[in-house]
Amino acid sequence: MAPKYKLIYFDGTALGEPIRFLLSYGQIDFEDKRIDFDGPEWPAIKPTTPFGQVPLLEHDGKVAHQSAAISRYLAKQVKLVGSNDWEDLEIDAAVDTINDLRAKIAAYHYEKDPAVKETRKQPLFKEILPFYLEKLEAQVEKNNGYLATGKLTWADLFFVALLKYFQVMLGKDLVENSPNLNKLKEKVLALPNIKAWVDKRPETTF
Amino acid sequence: MAPKYKLIYFDGTALGEPIRFLLSYGQIDFEDKRIDFDGPEWPAIKPTTPFGQVPLLEHDGKVAHQSAAISRYLAKQVKLVGSNDWEDLEIDAAVDTINDLRAKIAAYHYEKDPAVKETRKQPLFKEILPFYLEKLEAQVEKNNGYLATGKLTWADLFFVALLKYFQVMLGKDLVENSPNLNKLKEKVLALPNIKAWVDKRPETTF
Repeated sequence: MAPKYKLIYFDGTALGEPIRFLLSYGQIDFEDKRIDFDGPEWPAIKPTTPFGQVPLLEHDGKVAHQSAAISRYLAKQVKLVGSNDWEDLEIDAAVDTINDLRAKIAAYHYEKDPAVKETRKQPLFKEILPFYLEKLEAQVEKNNGYLATGKLTWADLFFVALLKYFQVMLGKDLVENSPNLNKLKEKVLALPNIKAWVDKRPETTF
Repeated sequence: MAPKYKLIYFDGTALGEPIRFLLSYGQIDFEDKRIDFDGPEWPAIKPTTPFGQVPLLEHDGKVAHQSAAISRYLAKQVKLVGSNDWEDLEIDAAVDTINDLRAKIAAYHYEKDPAVKETRKQPLFKEILPFYLEKLEAQVEKNNGYLATGKLTWADLFFVALLKYFQVMLGKDLVENSPNLNKLKEKVLALPNIKAWVDKRPETTF
């Protein structure tokens, strides 16, 4: 039987990886369609996407876009959501905060003008990263070793799935000096279904 | 009796207004705490917030942050969500797309270096805005006059609540030449509870 879900993304982790983590966590079989960003396929596919972006999730003849939205949908299917609306709010806020941090790292990493990029380096490494890491460390401390609600949720998988991408953009491991976040990373990567996925996923540059 | 919800935000629409729209739509009484961005209060409050940002929503002794997360929570309370998980995914994707658009407009508007700002003007007005507006026009056409699921959802309130802020950042009405989006705007602003809120809300510069 063909898989019920098809993920379309680049041949890398980045915004596709939280989706792959959630599908793997729930042992949901999926087609892992990977596009070479620099090859001829992407310019052909791009205009056919809802807003010129991937990841996309195909299911039952329908197509969805936006990585966090897709991740939230899958989190409901694999039961990594909160126990009530307020818990879901706390999870969603954690995910949006991770995405804010991602946008700030990306604004540095993807800046094409070397002079502008240089002006962004010091604020990012000396102010923004320490600020977020201190806040996130305290948040995980308060939440029993997790990002929200005191238990494992999709916010944790979302965060840990992005860490390889953050490492590529930063040139170093984001959580290397943050014991609580590092423990969270190890805990998620030790989940049997996540470990099985990471062990078998293709080696990629990002 | 004191209101069950307290919104803490600047004295403007922007990221606080989707929350005010949703509370007003559901006729939920709330304390509308407004901070002067340029006054002495904000530097005192900022370090006490979860990640140095507002809006915040206080409820039952708890504090939540992140505007989209808070809006999604309130949408559940006032029944502006989807009929199933896939519909919620479509709504969430629309909201994240509006936020992507907001980030692109903000990257132009808030750029402090006049030379850098000038280089962002043409791509924003000649490429990014037309691209998003054409896609969103088609999306509303396909969804029976709404952003998602063929009926009124919190994505519509989220979008229309941000239009004043977009106008301030762009110097013009985002939807003036987009008939479907303009009709959606008028439809949302004509909802009796939204109209009552907009009629009574304070006049602000953003």
